[in-house]
Amino acid sequence: MATETKFAPGLEGVIAAETAISLLDTEQEKIVIKGQDLIELSKEKGYLDIVHLLLEDSLPNDAERAALEEKLKERYDVPAAIIDILKLLPPHTHPMDGMRTGLSALAGYDEHLLDRSPEVNRDRAYDLLAKLPTITVNSYRILKKQEPVLPRKDLSYSANFLYMITGEVPTEEQAKIFDRSLLLYSEHEMPNSTFTARVIASTQSDLFGALTGAVASLKGHLHGGANEAVMYMLNEVDSVAAFEELLLKKLQRKEKIMGFGHRVYMRKMDPRALMMKESLKKLCEAKGDYRLLEMCEAGEEVMRTEKGLYPNLDYYAAPVYWLLGIPIELYTPIFFSARTVGLSAHVIEQHENNRLFRPRVHYIGEKY
Amino acid sequence: MATETKFAPGLEGVIAAETAISLLDTEQEKIVIKGQDLIELSKEKGYLDIVHLLLEDSLPNDAERAALEEKLKERYDVPAAIIDILKLLPPHTHPMDGMRTGLSALAGYDEHLLDRSPEVNRDRAYDLLAKLPTITVNSYRILKKQEPVLPRKDLSYSANFLYMITGEVPTEEQAKIFDRSLLLYSEHEMPNSTFTARVIASTQSDLFGALTGAVASLKGHLHGGANEAVMYMLNEVDSVAAFEELLLKKLQRKEKIMGFGHRVYMRKMDPRALMMKESLKKLCEAKGDYRLLEMCEAGEEVMRTEKGLYPNLDYYAAPVYWLLGIPIELYTPIFFSARTVGLSAHVIEQHENNRLFRPRVHYIGEKY
Ligand SMILES: CC(C)(COP(=O)(O)OP(=O)(O)OC[C@H]1O[C@@H](n2cnc3c(N)ncnc32)[C@H](O)[C@@H]1OP(=O)(O)O)[C@@H](O)C(=O)NCCC(=O)NCCS
Ligand SMILES: CC(C)(COP(=O)(O)OP(=O)(O)OC[C@H]1O[C@@H](n2cnc3c(N)ncnc32)[C@H](O)[C@@H]1OP(=O)(O)O)[C@@H](O)C(=O)NCCC(=O)NCCS
Repeated sequence: MATETKFAPGLEGVIAAETAISLLDTEQEKIVIKGQDLIELSKEKGYLDIVHLLLEDSLPNDAERAALEEKLKERYDVPAAIIDILKLLPPHTHPMDGMRTGLSALAGYDEHLLDRSPEVNRDRAYDLLAKLPTITVNSYRILKKQEPVLPRKDLSYSANFLYMITGEVPTEEQAKIFDRSLLLYSEHEMPNSTFTARVIASTQSDLFGALTGAVASLKGHLHGGANEAVMYMLNEVDSVAAFEELLLKKLQRKEKIMGFGHRVYMRKMDPRALMMKESLKKLCEAKGDYRLLEMCEAGEEVMRTEKGLYPNLDYYAAPVYWLLGIPIELYTPIFFSARTVGLSAHVIEQHENNRLFRPRVHYIGEKY
Repeated sequence: MATETKFAPGLEGVIAAETAISLLDTEQEKIVIKGQDLIELSKEKGYLDIVHLLLEDSLPNDAERAALEEKLKERYDVPAAIIDILKLLPPHTHPMDGMRTGLSALAGYDEHLLDRSPEVNRDRAYDLLAKLPTITVNSYRILKKQEPVLPRKDLSYSANFLYMITGEVPTEEQAKIFDRSLLLYSEHEMPNSTFTARVIASTQSDLFGALTGAVASLKGHLHGGANEAVMYMLNEVDSVAAFEELLLKKLQRKEKIMGFGHRVYMRKMDPRALMMKESLKKLCEAKGDYRLLEMCEAGEEVMRTEKGLYPNLDYYAAPVYWLLGIPIELYTPIFFSARTVGLSAHVIEQHENNRLFRPRVHYIGEKY
């Protein structure tokens, strides 16, 4: 086997799957989702459009979009036992871990768990998309000793999600900005969590298992956990000068700065970050306070000059979520909730055309 | 990047990691664990010896083995809330899913979750090794509406595990056979579940997350789930002739026969299966009934003749567990419990020398 002698740490550059779902086209600088440009879509379409594109292979017309939203609303209710399980978790459980536990427990309610056909998998995905916002938000609320919140069907899918988080019905602009963040987080080729889900699914394990593993993956700071880490870092200081100083000090200590760099873009700006930066501008404008934007831009400059590194989506998602009034511990769970659709599409594809993932190693241990 | 143009489905033959833990040396036909031959070890050593080898880098002397067993016993107790969570799971939850949920919830009790140092990770691994048998067994018992069972510290680690499963103190021979099965399941290079755990750990996610993902992976029928599938298949018929016929019919329908084949051995017998077959012989002898052994041997013959395929460990683990009186739904959870030590060693190694796993794809979707 020709490949057996090579070793690319972190599987950098290794093709792990054939997929019809998405591609980071670094030459054309495009995030391609089912033949469409994600950034262009983000300018005109909403999260549910992408859900339809990813699960039904086409952008929906108005009637289809309305039907999809209705379908999700019909499935909002989460079994009471799941909420009771969240209540039993020890108090300092991270909401990401609460979500992982809730999602794992949900498997027991699926009466066709062994059926991995595309139809049943797709149905499961809709069910999860309907229920995950409620699980996400309540895994946080319960751990904070707040009463569980119930979804409101009179609001749009995204407006309800944000309403459950903040307790207040969002303005149209807030809802739109939040919806766009979900869209930008929806799918992104083969990041670690998607890879995790496909690797798990390849044993013929089910969608719940694959997604439970993906939550665990996304939690790490080198992946989805970066959005929370960015916000904690921004909150360490309160001025542009202090933030610049903080970054320089971290770089001196050879620390990695969360929110910068990406295996695939690395020396270019993540185009999703640019869109999110626009949202940040709007929120700063509405608030009449540009401090967070200025800090972020100064940080961008430091990292470009010092390391030639550019921000990724998580860098600008953090201050956007902050200005939307979202508690920091919910940033990564929201990312997961948004990514559920992309992950599900990948699991469906893996189950349809499967080969077990089973690589080899280079043994560097004790001689024998 | 030279590798970017190649694509090996299932990452066959691709080197995914450097490791000092283990190797399937197909030329010498050896399973190497930290420089030792697993099969040789299985003849003289016990499960706790391998635990010490994998986590402390050496085989223990008598005092060290005793100290290790004592340490595990001190940590047997599982938080009451975990048992309460298992009680809340819907009735047809598979014990493997119960285990996944219990393990996921356990993370909230770890007060140093962000500490990924080898020392803290190792300590966590011991804690899990102590608690997982209790979680494993009770996730089954509770779902079957049986009272939870508590561990007995007057029995050895493995004898207690088997006692909790069957409710009866095992004979010395039974305990030894069970212990050997745990040893044979303890570590096996880079199967799907180990790969899953390392992929998850590479985001800097914690041991609980990595292992939760590994449970999900192991559950699949192409992986650990095969031991349960084998037993259901053996139970479909009750004679050698009927079993042969069943296999031939399945092969005619192009079905995969669970318990046969392996990515790495494939055209050779899994040496662990040979050891397990010996255990099966002993149990048949003790029972004075050789039916299961004869059926399995006939199945071996059919598969060798028809497909040139050989049994893997799961093929012979299934009838061994059956004759030990273990409920079928516990076979894969037991596999997981035994593999916890190998998985933990891999997560420790990954955290010590990390690079994020992030491969690429071949896009075969809509043109753009
Ligand atoms: C995303 C990430 C893991 C991709 O990394 P990768 O392809 O594995 O690249 P490496 O970690 O090997 O980094 C390559 C080099 O760039 C440096 N680098 C990469 N990201 C960096 C960052 N955020 N801050 C400082 N240095 C960074 C590394 O230190 C390394 O330098 P060296 O060659 O001098 O050792 C990495 O950029 C990172 O850790 N970023 C911060 C976490 C984050 O924001 N994650 C969210 C991603 S959407
Ligand atoms: C373990 C396993 C997944 C490894 O498979 P792999 O390396 O991905 O190999 P493939 O599934 O691509 O199989 C290669 C060929 O052997 C055949 N094959 C492999 N295992 C087979 C089995 N158990 N029964 C029948 N045919 C089998 C395949 O059908 C395929 O034939 P083809 O080339 O004519 O299509 C596979 O052998 C299997 O599914 N076994 C049954 C499940 C099992 O026992 N798992 C526990 C492993 S410890």
